[in-house]
Amino acid sequence: MNYLSKVHSPYDIKKLDNSQLCALAQEIRQVLISTVSENGGHLASNLGAVELTIAIHKVFDSPKDRIVFDVGHQCYTHKLLTGRYESFSTLRKENGLSGFPNPQESEHDTFLNGHSSTSVSTSLGLAAADRIDGKRCYSVAVIGDGSFTGGMVYEALNNGGKTKNRQIIILNDNNMSISDNVGVFSKQLAVLRSKPGYFHLKATAEKAINRIPAVGENISAALFKLKTDVKNKIYDKSNFFEQLGYRYMGPIDGHNIAQLCDALEGAKGINGPVLLHVLTVKGKGYAPAEKSPSKFHGISAFDIDSGSTASHAKTYSDIFGELMCSAAERNNRVCAVTAAMSLGTGLNKFSEKYPDRFFDVGIAEQHAAAFCGGLAKKGKIPVFAVYSTFFQRCYDQILHDIALQGLHAVFAVDRAGFVGEDGETHQGIFDVAFLNGIPGVKVYSPCSFEQMKYDFEKALFTDDTAVVLRYPRGGENKAEYCRGTDSDVYFCGSENADTYIVSYGRVCSAAQQAVHELESSGESIGLIGLNLIKPIPVQAIDTAFGAKRILFFEEGVQSCSTGSLFALELLKRGYKGEFSLTAVPDTFVTHAGVSSLLKKYGLDKESIIKKVKRIE
Amino acid sequence: MNYLSKVHSPYDIKKLDNSQLCALAQEIRQVLISTVSENGGHLASNLGAVELTIAIHKVFDSPKDRIVFDVGHQCYTHKLLTGRYESFSTLRKENGLSGFPNPQESEHDTFLNGHSSTSVSTSLGLAAADRIDGKRCYSVAVIGDGSFTGGMVYEALNNGGKTKNRQIIILNDNNMSISDNVGVFSKQLAVLRSKPGYFHLKATAEKAINRIPAVGENISAALFKLKTDVKNKIYDKSNFFEQLGYRYMGPIDGHNIAQLCDALEGAKGINGPVLLHVLTVKGKGYAPAEKSPSKFHGISAFDIDSGSTASHAKTYSDIFGELMCSAAERNNRVCAVTAAMSLGTGLNKFSEKYPDRFFDVGIAEQHAAAFCGGLAKKGKIPVFAVYSTFFQRCYDQILHDIALQGLHAVFAVDRAGFVGEDGETHQGIFDVAFLNGIPGVKVYSPCSFEQMKYDFEKALFTDDTAVVLRYPRGGENKAEYCRGTDSDVYFCGSENADTYIVSYGRVCSAAQQAVHELESSGESIGLIGLNLIKPIPVQAIDTAFGAKRILFFEEGVQSCSTGSLFALELLKRGYKGEFSLTAVPDTFVTHAGVSSLLKKYGLDKESIIKKVKRIE
Repeated sequence: MNYLSKVHSPYDIKKLDNSQLCALAQEIRQVLISTVSENGGHLASNLGAVELTIAIHKVFDSPKDRIVFDVGHQCYTHKLLTGRYESFSTLRKENGLSGFPNPQESEHDTFLNGHSSTSVSTSLGLAAADRIDGKRCYSVAVIGDGSFTGGMVYEALNNGGKTKNRQIIILNDNNMSISDNVGVFSKQLAVLRSKPGYFHLKATAEKAINRIPAVGENISAALFKLKTDVKNKIYDKSNFFEQLGYRYMGPIDGHNIAQLCDALEGAKGINGPVLLHVLTVKGKGYAPAEKSPSKFHGISAFDIDSGSTASHAKTYSDIFGELMCSAAERNNRVCAVTAAMSLGTGLNKFSEKYPDRFFDVGIAEQHAAAFCGGLAKKGKIPVFAVYSTFFQRCYDQILHDIALQGLHAVFAVDRAGFVGEDGETHQGIFDVAFLNGIPGVKVYSPCSFEQMKYDFEKALFTDDTAVVLRYPRGGENKAEYCRGTDSDVYFCGSENADTYIVSYGRVCSAAQQAVHELESSGESIGLIGLNLIKPIPVQAIDTAFGAKRILFFEEGVQSCSTGSLFALELLKRGYKGEFSLTAVPDTFVTHAGVSSLLKKYGLDKESIIKKVKRIE
Repeated sequence: MNYLSKVHSPYDIKKLDNSQLCALAQEIRQVLISTVSENGGHLASNLGAVELTIAIHKVFDSPKDRIVFDVGHQCYTHKLLTGRYESFSTLRKENGLSGFPNPQESEHDTFLNGHSSTSVSTSLGLAAADRIDGKRCYSVAVIGDGSFTGGMVYEALNNGGKTKNRQIIILNDNNMSISDNVGVFSKQLAVLRSKPGYFHLKATAEKAINRIPAVGENISAALFKLKTDVKNKIYDKSNFFEQLGYRYMGPIDGHNIAQLCDALEGAKGINGPVLLHVLTVKGKGYAPAEKSPSKFHGISAFDIDSGSTASHAKTYSDIFGELMCSAAERNNRVCAVTAAMSLGTGLNKFSEKYPDRFFDVGIAEQHAAAFCGGLAKKGKIPVFAVYSTFFQRCYDQILHDIALQGLHAVFAVDRAGFVGEDGETHQGIFDVAFLNGIPGVKVYSPCSFEQMKYDFEKALFTDDTAVVLRYPRGGENKAEYCRGTDSDVYFCGSENADTYIVSYGRVCSAAQQAVHELESSGESIGLIGLNLIKPIPVQAIDTAFGAKRILFFEEGVQSCSTGSLFALELLKRGYKGEFSLTAVPDTFVTHAGVSSLLKKYGLDKESIIKKVKRIE
C-alpha cells in the first residue's frame, strides 16, 4: 500500500497527480475486497464509488465542505481517506469501525446515517445554514439512483431548486437499487445516460473549432452556434433535474478520476444548486461483484477467488418466502409488496412465480403501506415484507392508511430485534414500541419456524385487521420444551409457579432453556411465552398474576415495550409481587454480533439464570 | 334547492343536462357557504371543487369506479351528491357527518383519510387490484397542487407511470397550498398553466380545418400536420408528468362542467394512467374566500355578509408565534421551519420579520425534520412547528436524523390532544406514545401560557438534544392553584397526601380544580403536575410512591402513554398501593367538541372528582 499507507487525511491526496490517484484507487479496491471478504459488509456499492470518493476529497475541503453519503453504506473509501486505514481491519467488529458514517469516529463524517433518501434534505439544511451565515463552503450529497425512488428526495429537491445554495448533489447512477431498479425514474435516467455527456460535447466542440477556417467573424459565429448547441444539449430545459431547478451536469464517467475532478470543479463554479450525474459500475473491479451486484450489496464473509459465501442454515426469511409461495398458490388474493428488498426478505421465488401479484415499489415504505391499503380495499391480501428498521418509515401510513381504515393488510417484519454488525441505524428494536401505540394492530412474534407458520396462516387467513408478523434476522433456536406453541400464549416449566419468566420471540428460546435448567435444579419456575404480543393475551396476565415474582425479558427498547404494558396491566389489577423488566435501555445500540448484544443486554440464557438467581 | 333536494345518489345527476348541472352547482355553493358559516369547516377548497366533483360523478360510476379525495377536506360536494344533503346540517357535529370522507357514512367514500399526498398511492393500489382481476373500472384520485409537495406522491408516480392501470389523477390546481404554494413544483405548474390547453388547441385545429380548400390530398396532409402539432403540444415529452409516465391532459377550466366532462370522458378512453390538470379558484363564488383563501381554508363559524369570524382569546399558537419572534430577535441562530402551516402554527409574523431564517418546506414533514438536522449540525437552532397529527409523519426522521445524531432541534407540536371537529384523522393523541419509545427525546407538556414560556426558553437555550414542546389547540385554562409551575414538576393540594392525582398539559387544569375542591372538602389529596413528561422527573415518582392511591389522567392513547411508563416505574420499585390510569382507550376518536371529548373520556373536572370518589 504505497500510497494508501501515507494518506492520513484528505489533504494527503491533494498533492497526488492523476496517475498516482489511479494507483491509489487500485490499492483501495484491494483493501475493500480483502477486508469485506473477512468481516462481511457492503462491497458492491463501495467498489463502485472508489474513484468518485477520491475525486470528491481531491476537489472539496472536508470538513469545511460537508460530504453526506446517502444511506452511508458506500463510505468505506471515505473512511480509508480520512485517517482510518490503520483501523480498517476492525470494520463492523465490536468496538471497531462502524460500517456507516459516524461523527464520533471522525470529523469528516457528517451524520450517523443508514436510511435511504435523506441526504438531499440534510445537505440542504447544511447549505441553507451556510447561506444564512454567508459562508463560502459546499454541501455535497452523494446519492445513488436507487435512493431516488424515496419520496423525501423530491420534497427536498422541491425546496432546494432555484435557490442560491451551494448544494451539490452527486447522483451516483449504477442503474441498480439494492436489487434491480424499478419505476419511471430509472427509465428517465436511462434516457439521460444515452445522451452524449458534457465532456463528449466539449471535446467535439473543440475538434470542430479546429476545423473552422481562420476568418474572424465566421469563427465567432461558429463558436457561438457551437456553444449554443452544447449548452442546449447540456442544459436541456426538458431535463428532469433542470425542471426541478437544479443545474444538470453529466453524464460523467464515474471511474475516470480526471474527468470527475474536472466536473466537480465545474460544479463548484456554478452559483446555485447542481446535480452532477455520474455513471458507475456496481462492484467495479471485482468480477464476482460486477456479475452479481445484488448478492454483493451486503454480504457475509466470502472466498475471494470464487466469490462464494459459506452455506448457511435456513433463515426466517427463507421460511417466509416458502410460506408466501404456498399461500399464493392456494389463494389468488395473496399479493406481495417489497420496498426494494426482494432478495433480503425472501421474496425472489414469489416474484418469479407470481409476477402479477408481486410489487417492488422501490425504496418507498410510505407508498408501499398506503398502496397495500388500496389493494386491501379491493379484497386482496397484501403482505408487505420489510425490515424492522425501515418499517418505522411508514408509521403514519400503518396508522392512517391501514389501521384507521380497519383494513386487512399483513406486515411481515424481518430483522426484528438486534441485527448485529450494521449497528445503530439498522437494529430492529423500535417496532414493538411504536406498534404498541397504534390502535387495532395485532402483532405476532414467533419463537420458532413452526410457530411462525401458525402465525402466518392466522395473519393471512383468519385475522381481518392490520397484522404484523415479526421475526429476527437469521435462523431458528428451536423451542424444545414448550407446550402449546400453536396458540397465542404457550408455557413451559412448572405450573402455578412461584416465579414466572415472560418473554417472546427469539429471547424465548434462551428463556425456556433457562427455565428448564432452573426447574431441573428444583426451582418453582415457569415460562409464559407470548406468541401474540399485541394485544397481550389475557391468559398470560391471569397466569402471571398468581406468582410472587415476574421477570419479563424482551429484545427491544424498554419504554413502550410489551413488558411495560404487561406491568401496567399487573399494577391496574393490584399486583403486589415483585416485577422486573429486562429490555434494551432507552438508548441506541452500536454494532456487535447478535449473541454479543444479547449477552450485553442480559437476554441470553446465562444472564436470565443469573437474574433469576439474583446474581449481579 | 330545486335540483339538490332531488339528488339522492350520483345516478340522479346523470340525467341532468349542462345548464341543470350549472344550476345545481350554484345550489351546492349556497349550501356550502351557509353550512360552514354555522358549523365551521373547510370552505375555500370545497368551493373550488364544486364543478369538478359534479363532473366526476356525471362521468364515473361510483362506487364501482372509486374516487379518492386527497386529504379529504374537499369532499363536501361529494357528500351532497351521494345521499347526504338531508343530513348536511350535522356536518362536523357530534354524531353528525364527518368533515372528511368516511366509508361508514357511505359506500361512495373510499377511505377515511385526512393526511395529504396519499391518494396517488391508495388509488394505485385500487387500480392494481382491478388490473389483476381484469376488472374494467377506474380509480380516480383528486389531489391538489399543494399535496404534490409531499414525497409520497412521487413514490407512487414512479410506480404508476407507464403501466396499464386505469388510474386517473385529477390535479386540482388552485395555485395554493393551505398557505401560498412553495417550491419548484409550483413553478413547473405555472409553466403548464400558461400553455394553451387541449381544448383551445382542438378548437383552433377545427377552425383551421374549415379554412382548408377542399382538395383531397392537401386536406389529409394539412390534417396530419395539425394533428401532429396538436399532439406535440399536448403530449409534450418534456412535460413533467409525461416524463413520469403519465399521459398529461390539460389545462382544463375547472369551473366549466361541460369541458370537465369532455376531458374526463377523454381520460377514460386512454389505455393507461392519466394526469388531468384542472385549474380552479380556491374559494370560488364567495368573494371573501376568493380574496383570503388561507383564512377560509379551515374556518370557524363566520358571518356570511362580512366573512368575519368571532374574535377569539389568545391561543397557544399565538403565544408560540410571539415567543419565536422574541427568541429570533435575541438570538440569530433561531430558525423556524413549517410544513405549509405558517398561519395555523402562528409563524406568520416570524416569516415577515425574519424571512432569511424562515423555511416553509411545503407539505413535507419528513424533509422538514431532516432539514432541521442539517441546520442543527451547522449550529442553528431549528424550531419545526407542526401539528401533532402531522408530526407522526416524520417518526423515522425524528428518531434517525435528530435523536440518533444527538442534535439539538426543537419540535413545537401544536394541536396536541383532542382537536375536536376534525375527528379521527386529526386528533393529536399519538405523539406522546410514539415519542416515549424514542431514546434521547425530551418532551414538555405545559399546562399554561406561563409554563409554556418557561419550557420554550429551556427547549431553545438550555437543552441540547431533540426537544418536543407540545401544547393543545386553542387557549389556556389557567393553572391557578399550583406551586412551582416554573419547574419540571409542580404540585397543588395536600403534601404527603393519601391520594395523588398525576397529570400534565391541558388536563392538569381540570385536575387541579378537582384537587382544590376535594381538598377543601377534607380529602387528603394532592396533584403532581408533570411539565416535563419525558423523561418522567424522578421527584414525581418519589412523591407519588408514598401514597396509598395514585390516579393518572392523560389526554392521549393509553398504551405507551406517560401513565403507562409511570406505572412501570412504580411496579419496578415495588409499589403496593392502588393505581389507575384514565386515558384514551386504544381506539380512534371520532369528531365532537373538545370539551365533549374530555368529558367522554373521563378527563374533565367532574369525571376526575367522580373517579376519586369511586362514583361510577
